[in-house]
Amino acid sequence: MKEIVVKASRQYSVLIENGIFSRAGALCREVLRGNRVCVVSDSNVAPLYGARLEQSLREAGFDPVSYTIPAGEESKNPGQLVALAEFLAEREFTRSDGLIALGGGVTGDLTGLCASLFLRGVGCVQIPTSVLAAVDSSVGGKTAVNLRAGKNLFGSFFQPRRVICDPELFQTLPPEIVADGFAEIVKYGMLADTGLFKRLEERCEDMELIVAECVEYKRQIVMEDEFDTGRRKLLNLGHTVGHAIEAASDFRISHGSAVAMGMVAVTCYAAKAGLCAADLPKRLTDLLESYRLPVTCPFSAEELIRSALHDKKREGDRIDLVIPREIGNCEIYPIPVSEMAVVLKEGLG
Amino acid sequence: MKEIVVKASRQYSVLIENGIFSRAGALCREVLRGNRVCVVSDSNVAPLYGARLEQSLREAGFDPVSYTIPAGEESKNPGQLVALAEFLAEREFTRSDGLIALGGGVTGDLTGLCASLFLRGVGCVQIPTSVLAAVDSSVGGKTAVNLRAGKNLFGSFFQPRRVICDPELFQTLPPEIVADGFAEIVKYGMLADTGLFKRLEERCEDMELIVAECVEYKRQIVMEDEFDTGRRKLLNLGHTVGHAIEAASDFRISHGSAVAMGMVAVTCYAAKAGLCAADLPKRLTDLLESYRLPVTCPFSAEELIRSALHDKKREGDRIDLVIPREIGNCEIYPIPVSEMAVVLKEGLG
Repeated sequence: MKEIVVKASRQYSVLIENGIFSRAGALCREVLRGNRVCVVSDSNVAPLYGARLEQSLREAGFDPVSYTIPAGEESKNPGQLVALAEFLAEREFTRSDGLIALGGGVTGDLTGLCASLFLRGVGCVQIPTSVLAAVDSSVGGKTAVNLRAGKNLFGSFFQPRRVICDPELFQTLPPEIVADGFAEIVKYGMLADTGLFKRLEERCEDMELIVAECVEYKRQIVMEDEFDTGRRKLLNLGHTVGHAIEAASDFRISHGSAVAMGMVAVTCYAAKAGLCAADLPKRLTDLLESYRLPVTCPFSAEELIRSALHDKKREGDRIDLVIPREIGNCEIYPIPVSEMAVVLKEGLG
Repeated sequence: MKEIVVKASRQYSVLIENGIFSRAGALCREVLRGNRVCVVSDSNVAPLYGARLEQSLREAGFDPVSYTIPAGEESKNPGQLVALAEFLAEREFTRSDGLIALGGGVTGDLTGLCASLFLRGVGCVQIPTSVLAAVDSSVGGKTAVNLRAGKNLFGSFFQPRRVICDPELFQTLPPEIVADGFAEIVKYGMLADTGLFKRLEERCEDMELIVAECVEYKRQIVMEDEFDTGRRKLLNLGHTVGHAIEAASDFRISHGSAVAMGMVAVTCYAAKAGLCAADLPKRLTDLLESYRLPVTCPFSAEELIRSALHDKKREGDRIDLVIPREIGNCEIYPIPVSEMAVVLKEGLG
């Protein structure tokens, strides 16, 4: 088992091991005080893993209830958030009871946010079932739901009590969802100077190792900058443009695909501006394509600019753009909002 | 001017002075970075003070927008919370922009919660216009909205950037709203060993002094226990029973009235149990009645017990009840849930 200890406003560990899901109940018992837990999952995940988790929880002395949301990004909305809170309140959950997020990023973000708000905070355990959730959203304490004007605009920083990651759960994922997660893994490959990018080029298939490398990188970033005021913005590599692409497609383009396109766009921009080696875009697109990720954005710079300016990372008239200098070395460039059109034009051109 | 500096997860000051409202814009300027601010107030307060505040903000270089909620506890709901967030998102508020709560407890709690969640946190200044908000809800960072099952069940800990308190604003309050605030002031009188209770018995009318004494007591508590896991529970004196009374009355009984009745009930219970002097209930009821606060609860123990067990302070099978031992010395007694019926019966009998 790989155990990665995150020391943020709360200290907790991320446990990564094939097969660990069978021991989830006992592992939750170690970090949740009360006997009542609510397992939140979606309509895809609940039938696959819900009963096994509840059985494991009962064996560990818990009295679990389950709450299932419709699968899909649409569930990540304030109405669903409040409905979950009302569900807990009706069942008289107390401060010592807890929530368990069993699912992908939508389930994890929604559950984490609800845990941070219900009674001003109850314990939460994350059990990611998707690659994306395992390497990204389940770790680091960012929780959110979407508003009409954009994604993740309504949320909190709230660290989980524990993350339990079993890569074997990824086996039931559709290939396009796995690919989606690999967009974030490639992002870590661009950011981390640990040889991850090369390992991915060599088609490493040891998911325990890959997930642990990503989480280890994220751990360092979160410990340095839990509240996203500085270095944590590095994790937005490809996301400023990516979010604009998602929005322009009305979210028909998945997060991973959009991040892949976004990373390619900023890398192309960086290469043209002489900020990175001229062959970096090609290495990146080759790797992304090997994971069946798209690399060409179907929108023009003009179509993306308005969405890009909506980005919540914006501070007044400034956007902090993450630019790759080389593999394992990316930098945050604060650019004026007016420059964003140039970046998009160069990046997509 | 009295300045009370609160050192919690954020350090900020509470400024208390008659007439300070006229300088609110400049005082906000010192603690909010961006130029855009949203002034949140209710349909009673906005016509009285909204235009003056916006003028003051414009003079300080801000570009203010206003958002007005219907006056009353009903506005403290998740729908109103989300509507405010959507309003900010539509207007493309960024992380450097801020919110200003101009109003009583409902406005302050709703605005503070929205500020903590919008973009995972933007700056918030509290300008309390009611006695209750000045001495209680505007200071200390507890924010919340109500759920169907109970009050304040959905919230966060989020400290404001500054609190600007002008006791002259209380002059436009209806007498029953002033009385409501005095219930919390009498509570501080019971808790603090600074002679406040005696000063109130002597009909001190220096509101700057009274508010400052209450805020000073709250400051010490918040600095010791920001997240309400220990000593901060002292502030719940009268509230466990009070919340049950509010709920049983379907919120026709005001918070202050309910807290007054709740304080009397626990004090009567304490006197009968030999935990405080036999004459303490009489001193308390005399003082409360001098502020035109009710001291007799219209409900029986049986009618209150179910609501009392809903209290969000409950932890598993335990309720932490605050018991007065003498004026200036209250203690937290963890009692089993099953004992609550006894407390109510003795306290109300």
